[in-house]
Amino acid sequence: MMTKSGPPDDPEVPLYRRLAARWARLIEGGVFPPGARLPSLRSFGRQMSVSLTTAMEVFRVLEDQGLVEVRPQSGHYVRYRRPLPPAPGRTTGGREPVLISPGDMVMRIFHDAGDASFAPFGAAVPPPEFLPVERLNRILAREVRLRPERTQSYDSIRGFAELRAQIARRMLEAGCAVDPDEVITTNGARHALYLSLQAVTKPGDTVLLETPTYTGFLQILEALRLRALEIATDPRDGICLEALEDALARRPAAACVLVPTFGNPLGHCMPDARRAALAKILMAARVPLIEDDVYGELYFGGTRPRAVKAFDRDGSVLFCSSFSKTIAPGYRVGWVVPGRYVQEVERQKYVTSVATPAPTQMAIAVYLADGGYDRHLRRLRETYQALQARFVAAVTEYFPEGTKMTRPRGGHIVWLELPPGLDSFALYQLARRHRISLAPGPIYSASGGYRNCIRLNYAVRWSDAIDRALRILGGLAGQASRKSRKSGKPASSDRPPIATRPM
Amino acid sequence: MMTKSGPPDDPEVPLYRRLAARWARLIEGGVFPPGARLPSLRSFGRQMSVSLTTAMEVFRVLEDQGLVEVRPQSGHYVRYRRPLPPAPGRTTGGREPVLISPGDMVMRIFHDAGDASFAPFGAAVPPPEFLPVERLNRILAREVRLRPERTQSYDSIRGFAELRAQIARRMLEAGCAVDPDEVITTNGARHALYLSLQAVTKPGDTVLLETPTYTGFLQILEALRLRALEIATDPRDGICLEALEDALARRPAAACVLVPTFGNPLGHCMPDARRAALAKILMAARVPLIEDDVYGELYFGGTRPRAVKAFDRDGSVLFCSSFSKTIAPGYRVGWVVPGRYVQEVERQKYVTSVATPAPTQMAIAVYLADGGYDRHLRRLRETYQALQARFVAAVTEYFPEGTKMTRPRGGHIVWLELPPGLDSFALYQLARRHRISLAPGPIYSASGGYRNCIRLNYAVRWSDAIDRALRILGGLAGQASRKSRKSGKPASSDRPPIATRPM
Repeated sequence: MMTKSGPPDDPEVPLYRRLAARWARLIEGGVFPPGARLPSLRSFGRQMSVSLTTAMEVFRVLEDQGLVEVRPQSGHYVRYRRPLPPAPGRTTGGREPVLISPGDMVMRIFHDAGDASFAPFGAAVPPPEFLPVERLNRILAREVRLRPERTQSYDSIRGFAELRAQIARRMLEAGCAVDPDEVITTNGARHALYLSLQAVTKPGDTVLLETPTYTGFLQILEALRLRALEIATDPRDGICLEALEDALARRPAAACVLVPTFGNPLGHCMPDARRAALAKILMAARVPLIEDDVYGELYFGGTRPRAVKAFDRDGSVLFCSSFSKTIAPGYRVGWVVPGRYVQEVERQKYVTSVATPAPTQMAIAVYLADGGYDRHLRRLRETYQALQARFVAAVTEYFPEGTKMTRPRGGHIVWLELPPGLDSFALYQLARRHRISLAPGPIYSASGGYRNCIRLNYAVRWSDAIDRALRILGGLAGQASRKSRKSGKPASSDRPPIATRPM
Repeated sequence: MMTKSGPPDDPEVPLYRRLAARWARLIEGGVFPPGARLPSLRSFGRQMSVSLTTAMEVFRVLEDQGLVEVRPQSGHYVRYRRPLPPAPGRTTGGREPVLISPGDMVMRIFHDAGDASFAPFGAAVPPPEFLPVERLNRILAREVRLRPERTQSYDSIRGFAELRAQIARRMLEAGCAVDPDEVITTNGARHALYLSLQAVTKPGDTVLLETPTYTGFLQILEALRLRALEIATDPRDGICLEALEDALARRPAAACVLVPTFGNPLGHCMPDARRAALAKILMAARVPLIEDDVYGELYFGGTRPRAVKAFDRDGSVLFCSSFSKTIAPGYRVGWVVPGRYVQEVERQKYVTSVATPAPTQMAIAVYLADGGYDRHLRRLRETYQALQARFVAAVTEYFPEGTKMTRPRGGHIVWLELPPGLDSFALYQLARRHRISLAPGPIYSASGGYRNCIRLNYAVRWSDAIDRALRILGGLAGQASRKSRKSGKPASSDRPPIATRPM
């Protein structure tokens, strides 16, 4: 490559070729990894002090050399040297609702996320370095000084009024005009989901889910003794509406629970038209939708995807979210906008916890009002988009042939389908010995499916150690894949973590 | 009275008589209300700069005048001028378990507690003035500065380790030697009780309760679709063991849920021998006990009552408590020591809320370690004991004849049995119009009983306005009582807030 570009500092060589050679080195050295976006022509010109014409020449050379590709209306990106892994195909749902026992593996994975010696690809937890730790703490310290009695007295049941007003304001961006009084704060999104399911179901009811689906849903279903019916799902567009309609025609359902925006674990994002159709189908069937939107503000495109709640015409969408992915997981501040179920959810909040803590709610309310949340979110989105590019590059480089992978347009998780026969539990155990955490596919399934799939969290501070961990993980996946091809059966002797029985 | 004592400042009158006259005025002026304890002879002598002999003479005069009474081994107390209301009698339990719907009245009462315009006798909420607001806030502000990332990251599922160590240390005083690892922190005691019941029951199970019983239990039973079976209870010694044994002999029960120490709403405190017997009976029947100890540290005697957990031999007692009555309701920090159910409770905590907030747990941990908690508790106990005396005096003065009343040896609530026929819902509505909050008896019953009873919270800052509110309330109770005697039926047209159906 070097010879093609010519010796970079030879003044005999034209400037644009010398610059191209220097940038080729930056790319090959990993400063701009595969998938990374290069500066715009204008920025490049300014940074390198050259004309726009020269900048264009440089990029043309890099493109000719196969180092860079142009994406229309987006810019120049570093090319992947191997073909990118394709996206996984559409999943298939179950025929009958099942009662489930998700087991405790997810708690072990969560536990590993708190252990700094692990490469934290398992739990979807943002590292503190990405969060406005210092500013938020300063606000908290100030609030307890300014409003001491407020911080220590019981909050009202629905939650801290200023926070609920800020939440209502922000929900406008998701297309939802809600009154602050319709907002109920919770102990994180998990609590919001729990209260919502408790409000709209009774034991034995059937709940409709995407597949694969968020493990938290499966755990709540188990606790509330609900049956899971999984619906086929497209890794790009979300739940299949035809399959959903079929299921609704066959049997009654008490609720549908989805992550329509950067779904967990697939990362899909429903197009607006499908959201509108979804709302219509569920409304016609009188089935409430519990919409989990915790990743909604982490979009890579120019605008925030609209919530399904924006298409809610009769108050049957219970919108749940939290600040755990964007501001402070340790504060445990989430919320629910329960539509027509507001009184029932309020009552369930009182029953489970009386009220939520005051100081943390107050700090987040003030941070949202004037702490620079939008600026912080812009940085966070850029960080995650760049990290996804690095993960895509690493998987392309290091993982065995036949690997498929999602490339979500937001959030901080990717879903990998590894070669058939590979056992993600065995891989989980192997990786753990190398202090690498990951989430095996079957914990996202009510029926133990996705045995050869894994979910990776890329909310990590990039480093050589992370790159090395991905290389090791890819190597382990390759070994496991070769072994499973030879033996013809899964390598692990672990029982699947999901026990099910049809009803 | 004045004439008997002689003119207080006439130097011809002996010193002890002059002092006695001055103190008689203090007592009659309400500085020392009926039931209040006077200074010890030694303190009196020091305060008034007189000899012990003179002090004794003064107290003898006051006693002769009927103003003061001696309680052996305790001291001199201001006498009640009317006979004290007697204690209510033993309650009777139900025959069959019932499913319940406690209704939302308790939420309205909780809501009124946050409204400063109300005389807050309804909810059992301590006013911020009684709590270490300033010191705790200073600690919270310092902790977020010293350990910024710790405050903002997810806590471990079981809870903040330093806090759990402090809790284990304090539980020694209740006679419980528990390992910090057995402690699970929660979002207040309510969350602890919810998780405990969720861990040991399934829908349709029968749960044994005191009667009257804490409304929170009834609400959780409803949410988890459990049946309530109430057991006869003594207002002094707690649940009747014979009635409990009878009930256990008749049918299986999944759990027994009690507040054995300053029970809510009766204020009873089980003697040690009965605690030991209770633990034995339940262990033999293999029925776990959920012990709610939120008032345990608010004892008026010299030593902390032992928990029933102290008599637990096989890990079948789930001990629940919180710092909401003693440090900071708004922080929502509670805990559970679930014995042999520790893994199940941990899992339910994860399912309902992942983890509890970090900053509030950290602040309370540091406050317990070196914030002066014991000194604070001593002051709080004295405050509540003095307030109880004022409430007893006010009820004695202002409430209609036939009123019965508990005089608990700890906590901050009293239970009043008003004349038969009086309707506590009508009284609640009347009182609310006067901006006086109270808790009507039937919300403490699975079967709508205790219609003529009310619970009063005396955790209030005493003032003329509070005294006036008690006088108004007593007057309203008198009117309601006379009206009900005339009409022969309850005055209210309200439906009872508890709907039940036998199973």
